[in-house]
Amino acid sequence: MADHDEMLTTNPFDDDHFHEECAVFGIFGHTEAAAVTALGLHAMQHRGQEASGIVSFDRDQFHDHRALGQVGTIFSSKDVISRLKGTAAIGHNRYATTGEVALRNVQPLYGDFEFGGLAICHNGNLTNSFQLRSQLVRRGSLFQSTSDTEVIIHLLATSLRRTVVERMIDALRQVEGAYSLAALSKDGLIGVRDPLGVRPLSIGRLGDSWILASETVAFDIIGADFVRDVDPGEMVIINEAGLQSIRPFGLKRPARFCVFEHIYFARPDSVLDGRSVYEVRKRIGRELAKESPIEADTVIPVPDSGVPAALGYSVESGLPFELGIVRNHYVGRTFIEPTDQIRHLGVKLKHNANRAFIEGKRVILVDDSIVRGTTSTKIVEMVRAAGAREVHVRISSPPTNHSCFYGIATPERDKLLASRFDVEGMAEYIGADSLAFISIDGLYRALGLAGRDPVTPAFCDACFTGDYPIPLLDHDQGNVATQLSLIAEIA
Amino acid sequence: MADHDEMLTTNPFDDDHFHEECAVFGIFGHTEAAAVTALGLHAMQHRGQEASGIVSFDRDQFHDHRALGQVGTIFSSKDVISRLKGTAAIGHNRYATTGEVALRNVQPLYGDFEFGGLAICHNGNLTNSFQLRSQLVRRGSLFQSTSDTEVIIHLLATSLRRTVVERMIDALRQVEGAYSLAALSKDGLIGVRDPLGVRPLSIGRLGDSWILASETVAFDIIGADFVRDVDPGEMVIINEAGLQSIRPFGLKRPARFCVFEHIYFARPDSVLDGRSVYEVRKRIGRELAKESPIEADTVIPVPDSGVPAALGYSVESGLPFELGIVRNHYVGRTFIEPTDQIRHLGVKLKHNANRAFIEGKRVILVDDSIVRGTTSTKIVEMVRAAGAREVHVRISSPPTNHSCFYGIATPERDKLLASRFDVEGMAEYIGADSLAFISIDGLYRALGLAGRDPVTPAFCDACFTGDYPIPLLDHDQGNVATQLSLIAEIA
Amino acid sequence: MADHDEMLTTNPFDDDHFHEECAVFGIFGHTEAAAVTALGLHAMQHRGQEASGIVSFDRDQFHDHRALGQVGTIFSSKDVISRLKGTAAIGHNRYATTGEVALRNVQPLYGDFEFGGLAICHNGNLTNSFQLRSQLVRRGSLFQSTSDTEVIIHLLATSLRRTVVERMIDALRQVEGAYSLAALSKDGLIGVRDPLGVRPLSIGRLGDSWILASETVAFDIIGADFVRDVDPGEMVIINEAGLQSIRPFGLKRPARFCVFEHIYFARPDSVLDGRSVYEVRKRIGRELAKESPIEADTVIPVPDSGVPAALGYSVESGLPFELGIVRNHYVGRTFIEPTDQIRHLGVKLKHNANRAFIEGKRVILVDDSIVRGTTSTKIVEMVRAAGAREVHVRISSPPTNHSCFYGIATPERDKLLASRFDVEGMAEYIGADSLAFISIDGLYRALGLAGRDPVTPAFCDACFTGDYPIPLLDHDQGNVATQLSLIAEIA
Amino acid sequence: MADHDEMLTTNPFDDDHFHEECAVFGIFGHTEAAAVTALGLHAMQHRGQEASGIVSFDRDQFHDHRALGQVGTIFSSKDVISRLKGTAAIGHNRYATTGEVALRNVQPLYGDFEFGGLAICHNGNLTNSFQLRSQLVRRGSLFQSTSDTEVIIHLLATSLRRTVVERMIDALRQVEGAYSLAALSKDGLIGVRDPLGVRPLSIGRLGDSWILASETVAFDIIGADFVRDVDPGEMVIINEAGLQSIRPFGLKRPARFCVFEHIYFARPDSVLDGRSVYEVRKRIGRELAKESPIEADTVIPVPDSGVPAALGYSVESGLPFELGIVRNHYVGRTFIEPTDQIRHLGVKLKHNANRAFIEGKRVILVDDSIVRGTTSTKIVEMVRAAGAREVHVRISSPPTNHSCFYGIATPERDKLLASRFDVEGMAEYIGADSLAFISIDGLYRALGLAGRDPVTPAFCDACFTGDYPIPLLDHDQGNVATQLSLIAEIA
Repeated sequence: MADHDEMLTTNPFDDDHFHEECAVFGIFGHTEAAAVTALGLHAMQHRGQEASGIVSFDRDQFHDHRALGQVGTIFSSKDVISRLKGTAAIGHNRYATTGEVALRNVQPLYGDFEFGGLAICHNGNLTNSFQLRSQLVRRGSLFQSTSDTEVIIHLLATSLRRTVVERMIDALRQVEGAYSLAALSKDGLIGVRDPLGVRPLSIGRLGDSWILASETVAFDIIGADFVRDVDPGEMVIINEAGLQSIRPFGLKRPARFCVFEHIYFARPDSVLDGRSVYEVRKRIGRELAKESPIEADTVIPVPDSGVPAALGYSVESGLPFELGIVRNHYVGRTFIEPTDQIRHLGVKLKHNANRAFIEGKRVILVDDSIVRGTTSTKIVEMVRAAGAREVHVRISSPPTNHSCFYGIATPERDKLLASRFDVEGMAEYIGADSLAFISIDGLYRALGLAGRDPVTPAFCDACFTGDYPIPLLDHDQGNVATQLSLIAEIA
Repeated sequence: MADHDEMLTTNPFDDDHFHEECAVFGIFGHTEAAAVTALGLHAMQHRGQEASGIVSFDRDQFHDHRALGQVGTIFSSKDVISRLKGTAAIGHNRYATTGEVALRNVQPLYGDFEFGGLAICHNGNLTNSFQLRSQLVRRGSLFQSTSDTEVIIHLLATSLRRTVVERMIDALRQVEGAYSLAALSKDGLIGVRDPLGVRPLSIGRLGDSWILASETVAFDIIGADFVRDVDPGEMVIINEAGLQSIRPFGLKRPARFCVFEHIYFARPDSVLDGRSVYEVRKRIGRELAKESPIEADTVIPVPDSGVPAALGYSVESGLPFELGIVRNHYVGRTFIEPTDQIRHLGVKLKHNANRAFIEGKRVILVDDSIVRGTTSTKIVEMVRAAGAREVHVRISSPPTNHSCFYGIATPERDKLLASRFDVEGMAEYIGADSLAFISIDGLYRALGLAGRDPVTPAFCDACFTGDYPIPLLDHDQGNVATQLSLIAEIA
Repeated sequence: MADHDEMLTTNPFDDDHFHEECAVFGIFGHTEAAAVTALGLHAMQHRGQEASGIVSFDRDQFHDHRALGQVGTIFSSKDVISRLKGTAAIGHNRYATTGEVALRNVQPLYGDFEFGGLAICHNGNLTNSFQLRSQLVRRGSLFQSTSDTEVIIHLLATSLRRTVVERMIDALRQVEGAYSLAALSKDGLIGVRDPLGVRPLSIGRLGDSWILASETVAFDIIGADFVRDVDPGEMVIINEAGLQSIRPFGLKRPARFCVFEHIYFARPDSVLDGRSVYEVRKRIGRELAKESPIEADTVIPVPDSGVPAALGYSVESGLPFELGIVRNHYVGRTFIEPTDQIRHLGVKLKHNANRAFIEGKRVILVDDSIVRGTTSTKIVEMVRAAGAREVHVRISSPPTNHSCFYGIATPERDKLLASRFDVEGMAEYIGADSLAFISIDGLYRALGLAGRDPVTPAFCDACFTGDYPIPLLDHDQGNVATQLSLIAEIA
Repeated sequence: MADHDEMLTTNPFDDDHFHEECAVFGIFGHTEAAAVTALGLHAMQHRGQEASGIVSFDRDQFHDHRALGQVGTIFSSKDVISRLKGTAAIGHNRYATTGEVALRNVQPLYGDFEFGGLAICHNGNLTNSFQLRSQLVRRGSLFQSTSDTEVIIHLLATSLRRTVVERMIDALRQVEGAYSLAALSKDGLIGVRDPLGVRPLSIGRLGDSWILASETVAFDIIGADFVRDVDPGEMVIINEAGLQSIRPFGLKRPARFCVFEHIYFARPDSVLDGRSVYEVRKRIGRELAKESPIEADTVIPVPDSGVPAALGYSVESGLPFELGIVRNHYVGRTFIEPTDQIRHLGVKLKHNANRAFIEGKRVILVDDSIVRGTTSTKIVEMVRAAGAREVHVRISSPPTNHSCFYGIATPERDKLLASRFDVEGMAEYIGADSLAFISIDGLYRALGLAGRDPVTPAFCDACFTGDYPIPLLDHDQGNVATQLSLIAEIA
């Protein structure tokens, strides 16, 4: 966590967002399983850019390739893809904080079990992984990574059950947390969503083959059809016999899908839990315009995540939508600003105010969230320096004042601007003439509900409300990061 | 050219556009000259992504670093920047066709002259470089590259004049073509624009230092002020004595600025020849809506270059502007599609139709140009596959049916869709229900003129009209590429 | 094994020798522990050139760096060495067959145990590792490598004993094989030699620090003093309290040190089990001259391993020792012969006959061993082509007609020339006018004994005699390589 | 030069020798010209290890590959070799001082001339290259490298003669210095040796193809036959018509072949100017034993260059030749000693005293030369530390007290130990009980002459005598290195 904050502080390209930690993909029954997996991961690159991996199975052997970097680079070589033989594969994109960007943490992880090999990857976070890890180490399990996925692997290895599926159920019943996982063994492809369905996982079909993916865009890119979501608490087992469904956690509980997937994480062209992400974001913009109107000349999105909400705000308010901020598409992660003298230029490497347009105007900036406030401050300053007469900021999420423990990288709570100031103080901090957030009820309305049901809310909205639906077992026992004694990494 | 076409054919990320060949940047009198140059080049990355170089001068020695790749990667190391000592520097981004991506062609080029060292780079293309090259070889000059910039260097070396400036004038008077160049010697920074001012070059100020850049966005990113454009046919000499202006080509002729810079090449947040690129593009969209209206449900830009014209079309037509196509921001150049079976997925790696939105709608797609028609065909097909009821295409440039010889990479004429079909045939080819281009007069109207003056048009529009304002001396004598006997390259 | 043979066949630099599989080094109590370890490994590079690793301990954390390649390259960076903090370290050089050159197999291996971290590496081979591995997998241990060292790690992890030393004893008592190991935990540096002491391990002293190394040359290079060998079956524990000695395997059995270390593996400047390797080799040469004299003009060593025996042969026979074959010192492992036409040149890349000297002479070539006969055949042919009138070959080992299972890479038995032909047939095969090997008794005489005691021979000479002193448990149960189902490697 | 000294000071692997600067190779009429060239360069790796290059010609185009590093690495890829198409090729190995290890200096250099392309490389050094360079720059030639080979290229380019051969003669008549060069144009392969024949160049035959090589070992490795040496002052032109000989410098002058080639540079298995290098070195050893006998127990060579002279000394003196110093074959250039504390270990990384043998003995160390004395000092110290009772040093060359300007890297004169001390002082400096050098007449006797003819000595022995047979034009005008203003290098 400390490392991550460090990065947030010094990286000039920090866009001050929460960050999704992963994407998973799986396919069974396709002659080019690895290639299709690479394409699917590529479509979900926004969910994790630090590392990717694919494990394939050719009915005899498993093959893997995992590396730090982006999908397009890692799987650009025909050699790599052609060595990933077989008709079944799973793959993973990883977002990771600085200190953990070690190759051994790159998923899918693989283990040689008594029943044969098994590869596994997941999107989410286990909230009792340290407890389980300690117990496993005590009985002789050796951990090779700091990934919570490895906890599941050791639970599988030490289970007394016989089959892969039985061991998987045995393992997952001991686990607490938010997860959508894909696993591959000689017995088939397995997909599981945690009982509350916090993270997404969908089922697709491409010809005769079955696909699992975190987002439906992965189906679009390969021309596959969306079939349905994996249900919260459902395990699907896919093999030559087709798709079987199991409910290892008993009765269905009310789901708590992550609302931030709709606000920021997912691609606008995805469909989550039956809702078009693009439409939800536009409706949030319309609600926001209704809740917090202001007199101005133009509505400007902070590109690219603010665009749909800005369109909605524009339509509802009748003010023209304009590209007042232009994004540089060539920003990578490697650019180092050479000296202090020009350090303050950071944000401009990514965004530039369209001075010729902005000069003299009263502008409404629409963005999706404010985390620590660093980027917002720079953007307001940049727009003002470009000659804006007034700068009003509208945010398409409620104030984020709680950390996430379910698979999203967030700063410690005391770094969150919304936990340090009220809205007026935040406006002052970022230098805006006015600032408004969508209300929590407005957000639920945009999602098609009457408002937030305080007893059984339809979504996990813990980052706004502090209402954590899954117990934070490790967290309640102290700073977990320091419990890990694993060997210090040398890059 | 053959190589380039090869690339256009096989690269799945080909976006079927004309490609700008270069950006130049120069600075004099800044303690962090190289760092500022790297930032300026970064802001102009869209003008050339294959290679970049910087040469700096510390009043005693020249220092250089040139490499293939993007600015952010090449200059990411503090070591590199800190070795580029000095208070003056020039830099260059290069777009290059496959066969010429050799390090020795990466600008700035450098030579050791009798008067000392000189580095030089330019944006544009000389139309008599092969004639000059042949003459120079005949008299004993040895060429190390296939770059036309080296022709200028040898003209400088063999000039009988004494000073750098006199030799530069001597050299440029022998040269025909479109060019905006920056040169650095111990006597200062020199900027020159060809007599017709085909390519852009602007002057900026940052504190006490002077800056030259191809586009004004380079000033924005470093917080510099735009002073004025270098005039067509003007040479500026910048040193401790300030900025001096010379007109080496005699009387001012009517300028012929490249109109395609406004349509596609330049960033929308640049100001070219006094016009905001963003505003021009929006006005083209409005003209297009007036000229070619159609009944439909929505206006969808082909991202990102089609966005401003689509906004203009939306405003003029009253039809809603929507993000019906989503761009994947993680597309690099290295992704290889593994097999034939999935080759046709190419365009989707970059663009995805927002199926949830598009389904059942009559859509107007707005794009900036159609070159060979490959991408347009795939996009129309993709949008139709996403369920669009009708697909109408509107293009914010006139049909491009002539090659460019002034510094833009274009296919051979017979590969241009507009030279193979009339508009109706093109519509059929790309599979659109209707297709319309802005008229040449409509384009000039969007630029604030009454229309195109057939005698002295205000812009170079040769790619639309075949009216080439600078003689194509090499081209008229045969295929120049085969005249080069330079050693075959080994990557 | 198959892979290794493959390599022997196609690698032009194959010198057709048995290959040592490893070197180990450990140090405790030195402020530059990692740097000294790198130097020690460098002195023992001949024992393994494929990969190296170091793990250091700074009383708080462990640090590691492991890579494929040679010591000089892997540890050439000051950054790497300075990150390997601490006053204790262990290191390892690895020889490996092609299929196993995976980073995860590079030692030292490391594990996080209940008692803290522990790193371990060894030289040798366990003969029941597959049996143990199967049992461990069955009870839930997950293996990450194919290294037999990992078997020891899991035995440590699952031991019910409390301390590191108790667990180590517990683990090693379950293990069969030849090994000299070094381990590092927070409780100190541990060195162990198997009960028969097949592989070497010596103790040195540098100031206040203690050192363990496979060969005494590692002491010379760092200016350390040789103290004594670790005894067969002895465990030494080194920490702040000094060096403690334990005998975990009970009563001392007669040792069986590997005789091939004296013949070929060890450096001539090492002292093994109290004998100077250089002197032993010269004495073998003298015995060989006594046993197999021949009329000739000159004695020529096959460089460099044949030099000491050739010197002995020269002295005893009175024939002049001459450099008739010159070795190219710049032969690396990466040179690929481009085509079939010149494939046969392989041996000459490494050795060249000194034609001006050899022409017209009757020569005696002295080499250390003949494994498959490929190199010998080429060398005889080369010397003959250089004009030798007669070519007599003398070998300073008995015929090698059994594979080694104690840590030496040897071809399958049916590939060994000595198992396919008698000496006369071998002479014909390699094209020599005469061929002779030292007798087994002559070899023992050169080692200072009366001859080989058939009941309790003083050395392990299984490769000559088939007398295996340690049970070959895995081997007796089938081809072990195929029992490993670990994920297929992608380099 | 300063840079080179710097390297001599800090490189722990400095062996304190003069260093040969290059090897050249050429072949005409072989279907695998590039592959054979790579093998030839590999056999001559000892003449230059910093960089290598090959240019081939396929009757239509030239192809090149040049890189820093060793031959085995640079040409290890089949791709590289297969791209070097054609039946003719030239190649070059380069030794270079630190400051000049830039890729653009790696030979062969290539130029595009009016008559077509030409590639050229040479072994040696021009003594008027700066004079010529200045004149060429003044008339408009642009230099890309600091290599003196480029002077020849520009002389070729600016020559008014018509054919390649005429221009080559024209160019070489303006040049002073020691050189053996190979050039390749569409008209054939050209080989030239300077009028005094200072550097070697031999002609070989492989089937129907002709070969040029610096040393005859290059013929051995590829199975070619040695035909004859290129004569001093001879130019050979090889093409489909066969080999033609021209004498462009008029009457034959008495040759002055470099005597140091015999002492140290050449491989012992080469034949230079009709003499076997190995035999010459042994005879030097015998002369040395006659001139400077001493009572001792053993003769020990400093490996590997001291071996032949030590053998000769042993035979003449009757004292046994022994491997008292063992060389580590795995020493590369990249090993960095981490800290001051262990810096003094440098020499031991390469050499180790065979302590078990040396202890208590009176030893005679035989080495080929003493340059600055640094290595000798360390070796004497090491041998003494290993327990030698007396250490006597015998050197198989006369004292080297003059720099070389004919293609050998030597320290400035005041760094040469022999120019600072007399022999007794040198003995004291290196810590030897006695020290003796071969006399200059003894050296000539070993070469088969009666002694050195003071009027027309048969060899260039300037490094011993200061008798420079070719005028040092640049040198006599000041420190030439500072005249080069070429751009500062960034690695």
